Amino acid sequence: MEKLSGAQIEAAMASVPDWRRNGAVISRTFQFKDFPAAMKFVNAVADLAEKAWHHPDIDIRWNRVTLALTTHDAGGLTERDFDLARQFDRLQSPPG
Amino acid sequence: MEKLSGAQIEAAMASVPDWRRNGAVISRTFQFKDFPAAMKFVNAVADLAEKAWHHPDIDIRWNRVTLALTTHDAGGLTERDFDLARQFDRLQSPPG
Repeated sequence: MEKLSGAQIEAAMASVPDWRRNGAVISRTFQFKDFPAAMKFVNAVADLAEKAWHHPDIDIRWNRVTLALTTHDAGGLTERDFDLARQFDRLQSPPG
Repeated sequence: MEKLSGAQIEAAMASVPDWRRNGAVISRTFQFKDFPAAMKFVNAVADLAEKAWHHPDIDIRWNRVTLALTTHDAGGLTERDFDLARQFDRLQSPPG
C-alpha cells in the first residue's frame, strides 16, 4: 500500500472530519458515559483492527478513548488508515 | 484514602518490582504474543479496575499494554494503586 500524497491526504481528511492529523498520524478521541461503555467500544475497535490486520494505538482514560492510526510499513498515511478511521466512526452511536 | 509517604511508597514498590515510579504515577508495560492476547489482558484489567472502582490509564500498542496508576483524589500514590498493581501482576501468566 502506497503512502498518500499531501493532496490525497487532504481529500481523505474530509471523509473523517472528527479526526485530526499530526504529521503521519491521524487521531480521534471518543467520549462515553463511563468506563464499561468505553471498553465496549475498545473491543469493537479491536475486532475491526484484527480483521483489517491494521492496529491503531489505543489510549484509554476512563470514559475517553483515543485512537491513532498510521501505516508504519509505508512510512506515512495510506488508504488503510482512512478506511479504518471511517469504520471506527461508524461504531459510535450517533450523538444525543 | 490517604496519600502514602515517601518511605511507605518505597516499601510498597518492593511488592511490585516490575513497576516503575515517575512522581505520583506507577506504571508497567506488559508484553504478549499478539494483539488478541493483549486485548484479553486488557479486558481482565478492566474487570478488576471496575470492581475496585479505580481505573488505570491503559495504552495499547499492538502486543504491548502499558498500565499507569495514581490516585487523583488523594493527589498522589495510595495503597489502592499498589493493591491494583499487584492484582494486575497476578493476571499475567508466568514467563517462559
